[in-house]
Amino acid sequence: MEQIQRFSAAELEKFTAGVLEKVGLSASDASHVAQLMITADLRGVDGHGIFRLPQYVQRIRAGGINVRPKIRVLEDRLSTAIVDGDNGMGHLVMSRAAEVAIEKADRTGIAWVGVRMSNHAGFGALYAEMPLARNMIGLYMAVASANHMPPWGGVEKILGTNPLTIAIPAGEEPPVVLDMATTVVAYGKVKTYKLARKTMPVGWMIDRRGEPITDPNRSDEGFLLPIGGYKGSGLAIAIGMLAGLLNGALFGRECIDFNADDSSVTNTGHAIVALKVSHFCPVENFKLQVDAAIREIRNSERMEGVDRIWLPGEKEYACLLDRRANGIPMNPNLRRTLNDLAASLGADPLPDK
Amino acid sequence: MEQIQRFSAAELEKFTAGVLEKVGLSASDASHVAQLMITADLRGVDGHGIFRLPQYVQRIRAGGINVRPKIRVLEDRLSTAIVDGDNGMGHLVMSRAAEVAIEKADRTGIAWVGVRMSNHAGFGALYAEMPLARNMIGLYMAVASANHMPPWGGVEKILGTNPLTIAIPAGEEPPVVLDMATTVVAYGKVKTYKLARKTMPVGWMIDRRGEPITDPNRSDEGFLLPIGGYKGSGLAIAIGMLAGLLNGALFGRECIDFNADDSSVTNTGHAIVALKVSHFCPVENFKLQVDAAIREIRNSERMEGVDRIWLPGEKEYACLLDRRANGIPMNPNLRRTLNDLAASLGADPLPDK
Repeated sequence: MEQIQRFSAAELEKFTAGVLEKVGLSASDASHVAQLMITADLRGVDGHGIFRLPQYVQRIRAGGINVRPKIRVLEDRLSTAIVDGDNGMGHLVMSRAAEVAIEKADRTGIAWVGVRMSNHAGFGALYAEMPLARNMIGLYMAVASANHMPPWGGVEKILGTNPLTIAIPAGEEPPVVLDMATTVVAYGKVKTYKLARKTMPVGWMIDRRGEPITDPNRSDEGFLLPIGGYKGSGLAIAIGMLAGLLNGALFGRECIDFNADDSSVTNTGHAIVALKVSHFCPVENFKLQVDAAIREIRNSERMEGVDRIWLPGEKEYACLLDRRANGIPMNPNLRRTLNDLAASLGADPLPDK
Repeated sequence: MEQIQRFSAAELEKFTAGVLEKVGLSASDASHVAQLMITADLRGVDGHGIFRLPQYVQRIRAGGINVRPKIRVLEDRLSTAIVDGDNGMGHLVMSRAAEVAIEKADRTGIAWVGVRMSNHAGFGALYAEMPLARNMIGLYMAVASANHMPPWGGVEKILGTNPLTIAIPAGEEPPVVLDMATTVVAYGKVKTYKLARKTMPVGWMIDRRGEPITDPNRSDEGFLLPIGGYKGSGLAIAIGMLAGLLNGALFGRECIDFNADDSSVTNTGHAIVALKVSHFCPVENFKLQVDAAIREIRNSERMEGVDRIWLPGEKEYACLLDRRANGIPMNPNLRRTLNDLAASLGADPLPDK
């Protein structure tokens, strides 16, 4: 069996940016997208990291993404706006939207920025966490880039895993970062299981008759299960309306499945909210209280056999520390896929280990 | 077996207001609280309706609720504020907070209003729906009034079922109103099962060793299960921080269990957000699109054996139509409890049927 190799974030960013430049992104955009993608890998959210690069490239080459977008701010009001991404890479569009939200919230205490004409933007925490540095709380919602779920009681996949992210600043503790799909697992996780040839647990997916699917190669025959049954389905609907319909982005059956169709404009919608802590209480007080709450939860009595109680986002922070120090592990299949991709574009391969 | 009797909303409101006046609320506050409580019954959300009256009265008589609160607006900014409820009935405090949010959002497009020093406010949709009449979207969060859930992996009940409500205006269709606890069921539902002497399904509650509890009389021995495992637990934590800590309200182990302690100040926290649709797109367009999305979902293909796909809040609207026409059914145990309560206070009993 081939060994899993580890790469530094800098190595993977350089590789990713090199590939993205070859398909037409400006050097600065390529580097920006690469940095955001590899942050997902650093956090252990591999389903949103470099693993996505071949798909992004395929889409760009098929003309499905505008590599030189003119991202515009529309409906520009005191505390709200719409960002039109001009079909650019979602990472660029959402970064801009988060910046707009933060600027506005800094003046008024809160801003809600809707996004249309975007694309898959990867790991939601990237954007929800941007307000943290300014002592703001961040909320992020998105219409997922494929429909993997029927409404509760249905069998037609007309809903996405529409995720919700909430980032709350802490003091000495890592921030609380809840980043959840409205399904029991995100589809990216199914993809990583497929690539790693692993069997999925019962409870992730069912087929049209409600029977469990555990073979990731059969994922096309069924659909992801929502969290809490009708609740997760309802949350996916509400998020789809807020992040999609409200902004003039697609929701429901109209959504483009970016796994099946590389060239149609996805008109992906997102929403980001920034909320200024100091409008509610002194920032230092709040951080002390969040730290205390984190510690109370972490140190509370555990169920037999449980080693540790994790706060939302804490595992990802632990992974970040590990991977910054020891590198990001990559399975040989993915490494080969990435090097083949680079070769086909005349981009530099991953460093030899 | 005694028959289940039906009462009109007006009859139950009059009864409820009469009881609340006897324990010290002003006539207008009593009538306002009664109207909100009975709206929950009309919607079929019995766990937040008249069923709660004995507990509210018990708490008021024990000095746990201020029947003549001075509700104040603090930290009053353009798009944000804190409402201090002065330990008044949660229904009054939250109504005021929603009004403040709507006024502010009407000027700036969005408002986030935090609440502290409130109490149990019942059915979250009451408040999240208030912005709808002004063509706004409403979001509501609350710290639950008792801790029925440990953090994921734990056994200490230091988290509530902290609910999230999202209300989205539609055109001809009923609005989309997602009103969900972060647990598989809310504790109010366990209480109604206890009162009706029904067995609970597996998956609602577990004991300290992770074994299912199905007897509602054993509910004290275990805890409610979060939706999606660690996700629901994380959502309860994030909501607790946003609706509690940020506003100077209680969260975590400090929370008062209003089932066990009638006299301590609960300092319940809530948050309400109002978002103006017209800042994003023309209201009529949005409503047409929401209607279309609702119909697409409702009319999509159903799993075998499923009669109908319900949108969030739609069952409650159907119940509203039925109960407006045919009255609100009440089981004989509850009727006796309520009449005993009224008699003990010298208030009018429920009408004889």
